[in-house]
Amino acid sequence: MSGRDNRQLHLSLNLNGLGFHRAGWRHPSSQPDRVFSADYYLELARTAERGQLDAIFLADTPAFVLMPGRSVTLQAEPVSLLSALAVATTHIGLIGTISASYSEPYTVARQFAMLDHLSAGRAGVNVVTSAGDRVAQNFGRDSHFEHATRYERAADFLTVVTSLWDSWADDTIRADKATGVFADLESIVEINHVSEHFRVRGPLNIPRPPQGRPVLVQAGASPRGRDLAARWADAVYTGSSTLENGQAFCQDIRRRAAHAGRRADSVRVLPGLIPYVGSTEREARELRRELEDQPEPLDAMIEELGAILETDLGGLDPDQPMDPALFPDEATYGQSVSRLVRFRQYVHAESPTIAQFARWVRSNLGVVHWIATGTGEQIADQLETWFRAGAADGFNLLVPLLPKGLDDVVDQVIPELRRRGLFRTGYDGRTLRDHLGLERPAGRRSGTASAR
Amino acid sequence: MSGRDNRQLHLSLNLNGLGFHRAGWRHPSSQPDRVFSADYYLELARTAERGQLDAIFLADTPAFVLMPGRSVTLQAEPVSLLSALAVATTHIGLIGTISASYSEPYTVARQFAMLDHLSAGRAGVNVVTSAGDRVAQNFGRDSHFEHATRYERAADFLTVVTSLWDSWADDTIRADKATGVFADLESIVEINHVSEHFRVRGPLNIPRPPQGRPVLVQAGASPRGRDLAARWADAVYTGSSTLENGQAFCQDIRRRAAHAGRRADSVRVLPGLIPYVGSTEREARELRRELEDQPEPLDAMIEELGAILETDLGGLDPDQPMDPALFPDEATYGQSVSRLVRFRQYVHAESPTIAQFARWVRSNLGVVHWIATGTGEQIADQLETWFRAGAADGFNLLVPLLPKGLDDVVDQVIPELRRRGLFRTGYDGRTLRDHLGLERPAGRRSGTASAR
Repeated sequence: MSGRDNRQLHLSLNLNGLGFHRAGWRHPSSQPDRVFSADYYLELARTAERGQLDAIFLADTPAFVLMPGRSVTLQAEPVSLLSALAVATTHIGLIGTISASYSEPYTVARQFAMLDHLSAGRAGVNVVTSAGDRVAQNFGRDSHFEHATRYERAADFLTVVTSLWDSWADDTIRADKATGVFADLESIVEINHVSEHFRVRGPLNIPRPPQGRPVLVQAGASPRGRDLAARWADAVYTGSSTLENGQAFCQDIRRRAAHAGRRADSVRVLPGLIPYVGSTEREARELRRELEDQPEPLDAMIEELGAILETDLGGLDPDQPMDPALFPDEATYGQSVSRLVRFRQYVHAESPTIAQFARWVRSNLGVVHWIATGTGEQIADQLETWFRAGAADGFNLLVPLLPKGLDDVVDQVIPELRRRGLFRTGYDGRTLRDHLGLERPAGRRSGTASAR
Repeated sequence: MSGRDNRQLHLSLNLNGLGFHRAGWRHPSSQPDRVFSADYYLELARTAERGQLDAIFLADTPAFVLMPGRSVTLQAEPVSLLSALAVATTHIGLIGTISASYSEPYTVARQFAMLDHLSAGRAGVNVVTSAGDRVAQNFGRDSHFEHATRYERAADFLTVVTSLWDSWADDTIRADKATGVFADLESIVEINHVSEHFRVRGPLNIPRPPQGRPVLVQAGASPRGRDLAARWADAVYTGSSTLENGQAFCQDIRRRAAHAGRRADSVRVLPGLIPYVGSTEREARELRRELEDQPEPLDAMIEELGAILETDLGGLDPDQPMDPALFPDEATYGQSVSRLVRFRQYVHAESPTIAQFARWVRSNLGVVHWIATGTGEQIADQLETWFRAGAADGFNLLVPLLPKGLDDVVDQVIPELRRRGLFRTGYDGRTLRDHLGLERPAGRRSGTASAR
C-alpha cells in the first residue's frame, strides 16, 4: 500500500441551523421552533462528534439577508455558539467565520484565542471578506470595499491576528507561587502593526492559544481569494460541482501554495457536498424531490436571480433566452465570484430561458456545490472516487435537512467510509490541528522576545 | 411588615479568574495553571449557581495591562466565556462587559442577542467607555476619546444596539410549514441610524432576544457616567467604600433616573464588595493579612501609583508628603474618575507621604470598594445594614481569592442572608430580568412595524 492509500479524508459539518436546503424547515422532521435554543445545537454537535467529524463549521454574513422560500436566513452568531459547543463536546473542531472587512483584529484574535483555550485546542477561524453593500451599511459605510481592497485588507488582517496570537511566548506563564513570578513579562511583546488598514499596538491580553494559532480557513474562489488561501490557509472551503472542477481547483491551490513558498500539500481542500442519503437510492431521490418541489412563484425566483446578478430582470420576458451580457463584471462584483462563474458555465452550456435559468438556480440552491444522492454505500463510492482522483482532501457537509440529514450521514455514509479505511474509527488526537494532520506553528520560548 | 422589608438583595459575582486580590494566586488554595481551562470556570459558575446568585459578571479591558504583584491581568474574553457558561448553567444571569468606544454595535447586538437565546433569557451587557491610550492603540487610534466624546458615543451606541434588538417584532417567526411562511417579513424593520458616531442600517439578523433586551448595566461614576446609567441602565456597578458614600450614590442615581423620566427605583445599584470570610473573625483577618503581606518592592508600588495618577513619581523622595497638585485633571483623565476621587479624599484626610500613599493604594488594591472582613454572620450583618440604610440594592462580589472565597460566601454568608429573609431560597424566575425584578421591555407585535 502506498503512503497515498493511507490518507484519510476530512469531514466538516456546515451547521446551518435548519439545514442547507431552504425548504428543509418544511419537512415533517424539521424543528424550526428550536433553531435558537442551545439544546438544538448541542444535539447536532453531539451527533457530529458521534460521527467523529473533524469539525463543525459556521458560515456567517453580518447582515439581514432575505432568502425566498425560507424568507430569512437565520444567522447563529459564530463566536457565541461555538463557545457554547466547546464545553458540550470533547474532540470535534469548532470553526467560525468572521469578516476581515468589518471586524476589529484585536477582538477577533482575543475571541478565537479564548475559544481555543476553552476547547483545549479545537478552534478554527474562516476569514472572509464579506459580500454586498447590505453588510457595509451595518458598519458605517455606504458601499462595500472593492474586491482588491478587501483582499489586501484580509491579508493585513491575518498578519495582525497571527502576530497577536504569537505575541506571548509558549511558556510565558510561570505561576510560581514561591517567588511571586506570575509571568515572564519579557516574553510578551508588542506587535506595533502599522499599515493602511490597521494600526494595532498589542500585545494580546491572553496567553498563546493551545494550538499556537487556531486553524486558518479561507473560502474565496477568485484569484485573489486563492492567493490568500495559498499564503495563509490551513484549509480551504470551496465549491466544486464536478470532479474535474475539483481536480483543477486542488491543483491550482497546490501550485499557488508552492509559489507562496509552502509545501504544495499543506492546504486541505474541502469542497462543499450536499448529501441526499436514503436507505435506498429511490428514497434518497424522493427526499430530494420532496424538498425541491415545494411550490414557489416564478417571479420570486426571477427576483432572486436578479439580486444575485445585480440586475433587474423583472421587465424582461421570462421566456426569452438568458442573455450572457446580463452578467455583471467579475472584477467589480460584490458577491461570490465562484458562484457567478458556475452560473456563466451553465448558461454557456445550456442556453436556457430566463425562467429556466431561474428554476435551475432555485433547484440547485443557487450555489456551486456537488450534490450526491443515493445510499450510504453509493455516496461513499463517490466520495472515494473524488478523493482518490485528487479532487478533494475531504468535504464540508452541506446537509440539506437538519437534524435528519446529519443522522443519515453519520449512520449510513460514515460507516461505509470507515469500511474502506477512508475515515477514522476514533479520534487519534485532541486538537483540530491533530484531526487535520497539521503541525502546530512554532512559538517563541521566553528569553527570545525578538524571534517570531 | 412594610413593603420595603420584603425586598431582597441582589448578588452578582465578579468572575475575575484568580480572584480580585492580585496576590490571591499565591495562596496555597489557588489554581493558577487552570485559569484558562473551561472546567475551572464551569466549577466557579456552578458554585455561584448553587448560591443562587443573580448573575456572573465579567469585567473587561481590551488591552494588555501590567499589574505589579500578579504581573499581568488575565482577561477572559466575555462573549466566549459567558456563552460557554450558558450551557453549563440553568438559572444564573450572565453579564459581560463591552467597550462602546472600540466595538461595532451591530456585532455586539448580535453576540448578546445570541447569548440571550442560548441562555434562554439570562444575558446582560455592561457597556463601558474604556480607559487609557493602551486600549485606543489596539484599535487604530493614537489616544483615547475625550471623556465627553466617549460618553456621547456610548449613549449613541446604546441607541443603536437597543434599536437592533427591537428591529424584529416579538412574534416575527411563524415557521408555518403548511403555508411556507417562515417569518413575517413586514415586522422586521431597518433602523437606518445615522449619527456622528455610527451609521447602521439594520435590521439585526437574529430574532428579538427572549428578554426583549438583555439587561443593561453601567459602571461609570463620573457625572456623565451617572447620567448614562440614569437614562439607560437596569443596574449600576459602583464603588462605595463607606455606607455614607453608598447612600449618597443611591440617592443621586435615583434623582437622575427621575430626572430622565424613569421611575426613581428603576435602577439596581450594586456596589462592589470585597469579602474576607472566616469561620472566626480572627481567621478572616488572617486571610486578609496573608494576601496583603506578600512582599513587594516600594519602587514597584510607587511606579504603579504613578501610572494611575499619570505622572512620574520616580524622581521624588518617597518620604515627602503627597502633593495634591500631582493629581491629574478629572475632566481630561483617561482612567477611572471614581477611583481618582477616592484617592483625593484619602490624601485630603490623611496627608500621607508618597510611600504611605503607595502602600495604602497597594493594600486597598487601588480601588474604591468596600472591604468586609469577618464571619458569615458578621458580614451578613453589615450587608443588611447597608441594604436597610438605602446604601445598596445588592452587591457585586469581588472575591479576593478564587475558588475558595466564593465557596466561603456561598456556604457562610448566603445562609445568613437567607435566615434574615434577605436572599432567595430558590430561583423564582428563569431570566436575569426575573432575578433582578425588572420588567421585560415591550416589543412590537407584527403588523405594527412603525411603533417602537
